[in-house]
Amino acid sequence: MKSFITYDSESDFSIYNIPFGVAFIAEEYPTCVTRIGDTVIDLAMLYDAGYLDNLGLEENVFEAMVLNPFIELGKSVTVPVREHIQKLFLEGSDLSKDTDLQANAFFDLNDVQMMLPVHVPNYTDFYSSIEHATNVGKMFRDPENALLPNWRHLPVGYHGRSSSIVSSGTALHRPKGQTKPADSDMPVFGPSKRLDFELEMAFITNTYTELGDSVTTENAEDHIFGMVLFNDWSARDLQKWEYVPLGPFLAKNFGSSVSPWIVTLEALDPFRVAGPKQDPEVLPYLKYEGEKNFDINLQVGLTPQDSEETVVCNSNFKYMYWNMAQQLAHHTVNGCNIEVGDMYASGTISGKDENSYGSMLEISWSGQKPVKLKDGQERSFIEDYDTVTMRGWSEKDGKRVGFGEVVTQILPAK
Amino acid sequence: MKSFITYDSESDFSIYNIPFGVAFIAEEYPTCVTRIGDTVIDLAMLYDAGYLDNLGLEENVFEAMVLNPFIELGKSVTVPVREHIQKLFLEGSDLSKDTDLQANAFFDLNDVQMMLPVHVPNYTDFYSSIEHATNVGKMFRDPENALLPNWRHLPVGYHGRSSSIVSSGTALHRPKGQTKPADSDMPVFGPSKRLDFELEMAFITNTYTELGDSVTTENAEDHIFGMVLFNDWSARDLQKWEYVPLGPFLAKNFGSSVSPWIVTLEALDPFRVAGPKQDPEVLPYLKYEGEKNFDINLQVGLTPQDSEETVVCNSNFKYMYWNMAQQLAHHTVNGCNIEVGDMYASGTISGKDENSYGSMLEISWSGQKPVKLKDGQERSFIEDYDTVTMRGWSEKDGKRVGFGEVVTQILPAK
Repeated sequence: MKSFITYDSESDFSIYNIPFGVAFIAEEYPTCVTRIGDTVIDLAMLYDAGYLDNLGLEENVFEAMVLNPFIELGKSVTVPVREHIQKLFLEGSDLSKDTDLQANAFFDLNDVQMMLPVHVPNYTDFYSSIEHATNVGKMFRDPENALLPNWRHLPVGYHGRSSSIVSSGTALHRPKGQTKPADSDMPVFGPSKRLDFELEMAFITNTYTELGDSVTTENAEDHIFGMVLFNDWSARDLQKWEYVPLGPFLAKNFGSSVSPWIVTLEALDPFRVAGPKQDPEVLPYLKYEGEKNFDINLQVGLTPQDSEETVVCNSNFKYMYWNMAQQLAHHTVNGCNIEVGDMYASGTISGKDENSYGSMLEISWSGQKPVKLKDGQERSFIEDYDTVTMRGWSEKDGKRVGFGEVVTQILPAK
Repeated sequence: MKSFITYDSESDFSIYNIPFGVAFIAEEYPTCVTRIGDTVIDLAMLYDAGYLDNLGLEENVFEAMVLNPFIELGKSVTVPVREHIQKLFLEGSDLSKDTDLQANAFFDLNDVQMMLPVHVPNYTDFYSSIEHATNVGKMFRDPENALLPNWRHLPVGYHGRSSSIVSSGTALHRPKGQTKPADSDMPVFGPSKRLDFELEMAFITNTYTELGDSVTTENAEDHIFGMVLFNDWSARDLQKWEYVPLGPFLAKNFGSSVSPWIVTLEALDPFRVAGPKQDPEVLPYLKYEGEKNFDINLQVGLTPQDSEETVVCNSNFKYMYWNMAQQLAHHTVNGCNIEVGDMYASGTISGKDENSYGSMLEISWSGQKPVKLKDGQERSFIEDYDTVTMRGWSEKDGKRVGFGEVVTQILPAK
């Protein structure tokens, strides 16, 4: 496939991608968009010009501040719409000759501001990387029994805070809170001293289910519109003091950053791979067939203020022990209902070797092995004015499909 | 104060209450309502008839499926509106003579269906009763060190699932899930065998704050519109297996039931009492002045199918160790933003003696002391077709302000 819209061969946004996002155009109005290379295309304008007729779009769902109205139409509509848009961008298409519309609907990436692509009614965070869970268990519990007894039997998860999910580019203030020094019985209050990123991905659901109903591993992917990169910011010192017995709270809910482009499961289909063997065997409701892991390269860069970036992690989404279908089947097996726009994050995605650890906690082994940055500085955790950039992309047979970046600068505590 | 609308002296919905709710009228349209005795009053109609003019209501915010648009106006509007409505209902008012409007805007409680009163963007559950936390700690950890080290230093809380919050009257299916028998290394799957209620109350916020900002204990109550009864359904056996290390998940998110009438903080003002002495002294951001606990009688009734109710718990909201202002200050001290309609539940509200325990887990002491019901049956936990009814009311100087009921029947697992 060759698009009439030119792009670099290294672009995440090839003709094979066709992601969905929401942009503020010229600081004037929000609209749903897609992207080829560095060209952002206003889908509401394509609709108004008749390029999206007869596809089951009864109204202009792209004329919106969020993608929820489009996503809610379900795969029977969104999949053909995406395939149709892909064809519109091919050389020789009607759109390729419609220079008037191109002048109005095509924008340079630098002239738009990308926003959070969906309204997120509910946000769940899983803990599905066996390497990450093992590393954390080794550090904080027993190196010989790093995984808790339930870990291999169910995808451990907990509810996060959806109000504080922000788009790439939104700076976050270092959180303040209680921590307990090791040498004291009393807690102290102040800015977190162990602020960390967590390299995650999240999937977004396209359905409202009824309370009491369950999704199976077989039909779970029908309910998943697509994925984003997800930086699950964590204050390790706050978490250590607060998290028993009911889990993380203020250590997490001061902000989570997501990439602005939702890459569909269909675009990721060529990059499916088999997941790890699950031993012991899982309960019947968690069994699945087919390849449900995805080979997505992941990278984290750390950039101190006014300095250059050091890549501190190269990981891959294919390492996940529990796949998304299992996560969604587990989440709903008790009858919990899902909603359109919900985000379900993977948990930190670490690989086997030290270069693939998805958090500073693991990379610096709880501060015992600070990372040397390119500019000579060292880091155990994230300092004020540091910027963390996460990237994700798949490549196979000369086709590249990626997520772009989620970029967040940390500001001092307010 | 005497209303021209007659009501029983034992009614929770006296002229001193003036709560807010949302009703489906004659199965035709939803509208925001208030209530005196068993008379439900359509506020959208009062607005259209001009009875709510010059109060800062620029449009008919009561013509809505949820109270969020009204609540969002903030106390500078909602408090005078409620006081004005109260005056409308007094003997001799213009409304008392307007029989035409009464014929159109006044409904018998039996002719309307009460709905969930707000859209809930975020739901947090605290764990703020020292008696409950101590009981749970005694049963599952160490009777000599029942409270974890952090408990007296911060109001422990965690995020819940807002999608599965339902209104009184909505039946819930018994959840299925994984549990681990004591005599096995492997988990099994099936319907929960230890389904429980948790007697809680929840407050609802009226503000959007900016990420990075904090609410203080001094201004927290300005951001609290009112309260509801909250039944935080829990599957104890699912929770025991899943909850380490990240907290409750499927054990809770299959459903939470709330009472349909939001009672404002202003209506509860006469029932303020001092909270318990907090020892050790709390950190400065958790200190507060004034009476921030409320004397609200709470009761739980258990009714087997086709049988009579047995009251299994009489508790009181005044027992709370951590008050709502402290909860909200803690929740936001790290910069977490709050939204209009958020629900913040108290955690199970237990008193000191066995008759005041707010869950079957405590009442039956984890099944060791089953409760004898009036009809001769016994209960350690909730059986299929049982109905649980929670009630809450305050009384002082002949004035009664209450919440009515939250009623939920448990159906078999789907």
